[in-house]
Amino acid sequence: MEKLYVIKIGGNIIENPEALDNFLINFSSLNCHKVLVHGGGKNATRFAEDIGIESIFEDGRRVTDIKMLKIVKEIYSGLNKEILIRLFQLGLKPIGFTGKDGMTISAKKRAPLKNIDYGYVGDITRVNGDLLKNEMNQGNTPILSPIVYDEDSKFVLNTNADTIAYNVSKSLTPFFEVHLIYCFELKGVLENFEDKNSVISEITPSKYSDLKEKGIISKGMIPKLDNSFDAISSGVTSVRICHANDLVSIINSGKQLGTVLRK
Amino acid sequence: MEKLYVIKIGGNIIENPEALDNFLINFSSLNCHKVLVHGGGKNATRFAEDIGIESIFEDGRRVTDIKMLKIVKEIYSGLNKEILIRLFQLGLKPIGFTGKDGMTISAKKRAPLKNIDYGYVGDITRVNGDLLKNEMNQGNTPILSPIVYDEDSKFVLNTNADTIAYNVSKSLTPFFEVHLIYCFELKGVLENFEDKNSVISEITPSKYSDLKEKGIISKGMIPKLDNSFDAISSGVTSVRICHANDLVSIINSGKQLGTVLRK
Repeated sequence: MEKLYVIKIGGNIIENPEALDNFLINFSSLNCHKVLVHGGGKNATRFAEDIGIESIFEDGRRVTDIKMLKIVKEIYSGLNKEILIRLFQLGLKPIGFTGKDGMTISAKKRAPLKNIDYGYVGDITRVNGDLLKNEMNQGNTPILSPIVYDEDSKFVLNTNADTIAYNVSKSLTPFFEVHLIYCFELKGVLENFEDKNSVISEITPSKYSDLKEKGIISKGMIPKLDNSFDAISSGVTSVRICHANDLVSIINSGKQLGTVLRK
Repeated sequence: MEKLYVIKIGGNIIENPEALDNFLINFSSLNCHKVLVHGGGKNATRFAEDIGIESIFEDGRRVTDIKMLKIVKEIYSGLNKEILIRLFQLGLKPIGFTGKDGMTISAKKRAPLKNIDYGYVGDITRVNGDLLKNEMNQGNTPILSPIVYDEDSKFVLNTNADTIAYNVSKSLTPFFEVHLIYCFELKGVLENFEDKNSVISEITPSKYSDLKEKGIISKGMIPKLDNSFDAISSGVTSVRICHANDLVSIINSGKQLGTVLRK
């Protein structure tokens, strides 16, 4: 099977125009099948603040009321389009998926959890991997935002980019040897957060338990790694967490940078 | 001198996805130098309403406070990007100008008029026609939104697409034989508003006075026509007001559709 890279680009890169542009130049130079998944929550929070609407979070997750849904939809869709335009200029044939475009990603509105109602937030029920595969076979590069579609209510819903990335990766395993890469502003999962070079090069499930116990991996990293191990169990070949600037070295030159997760 | 068409697409087309797509397909098939100017005020008004922010108008012109400026900037910029993506797909090399991109259009914040403060609204002071010409000579198609830049305050300002269209037209007369076309959802300026086929084929300054006196031309059409006659006096070869669907027949086949303004 041919290799496919599902690449998720994180918020700190997206909100910095120079870092984003640098990332997109690198992304466009990757000589392989690829899917890009982007977030943009920080941009949405800043825009909402500018127009006097407060963002509310519970356990680190955004509460999306109807006004905030309209805002995140507009902001994520604007980011999606900005990325597409730059990739067109860089010679790719990008195709954007946001909200109900092509009904690529279906979701169901999340029921209130532990008395917290997250509002218009979706849990993914199905990814149309077939459609994404067909786009790539035609030479197109799918670019996905965290806006999904609820087929029952005919409404768009908010979710998060990590969740999209790992569900999309799983949906493409029948067609490709899938590698999932989370790019962000650090060199990988760190042994010591104060030392930005203390990258843990490999994490297995037993080492993961150990790192959690020691408190080295905590908070937001836990759902990311839980989902990553789930992706590996579901047929995704590898999951890597690395600095956005290391992407080309990893994919085009096969360098072992960042943190790789293994069975 | 080579011909250049400055085409302004109106709000009723922009807020209808099918009509917009049809227009962009037609626009992309024009075999000439071209500049597109778009509005989007109706989309901005709808978005603001969705998030609970009321739009205020005085004499038909939007009052742009700081929150509304953030909204129109986001919405116009989103529309600009949407149009660019579609034109890339249709084989053009579009380049977007919105706000301070390339400082194409400079403006000055409007002082309160007749006790009405329009807020963050700009009056155009200079269009960088040289930059637009260079883009076209490189095979690029400029796509302009009504967001302009105040060099003194380093702030973006809101204006309107008609004003952009006629100022851009004037700025390009040193380099091209410039034709300005206002596309909208009617077949031209109508003799009788109830009869959508009663198009006035030609308006001269003396006929214009006559039509205003009879009340056939009134309200929003007056600044459009005032500016159009000013553009003609400043060297723009022709100004036409027509249905968006007639654009290809007019430019590629030389049909005399819509209303043309003459000296």
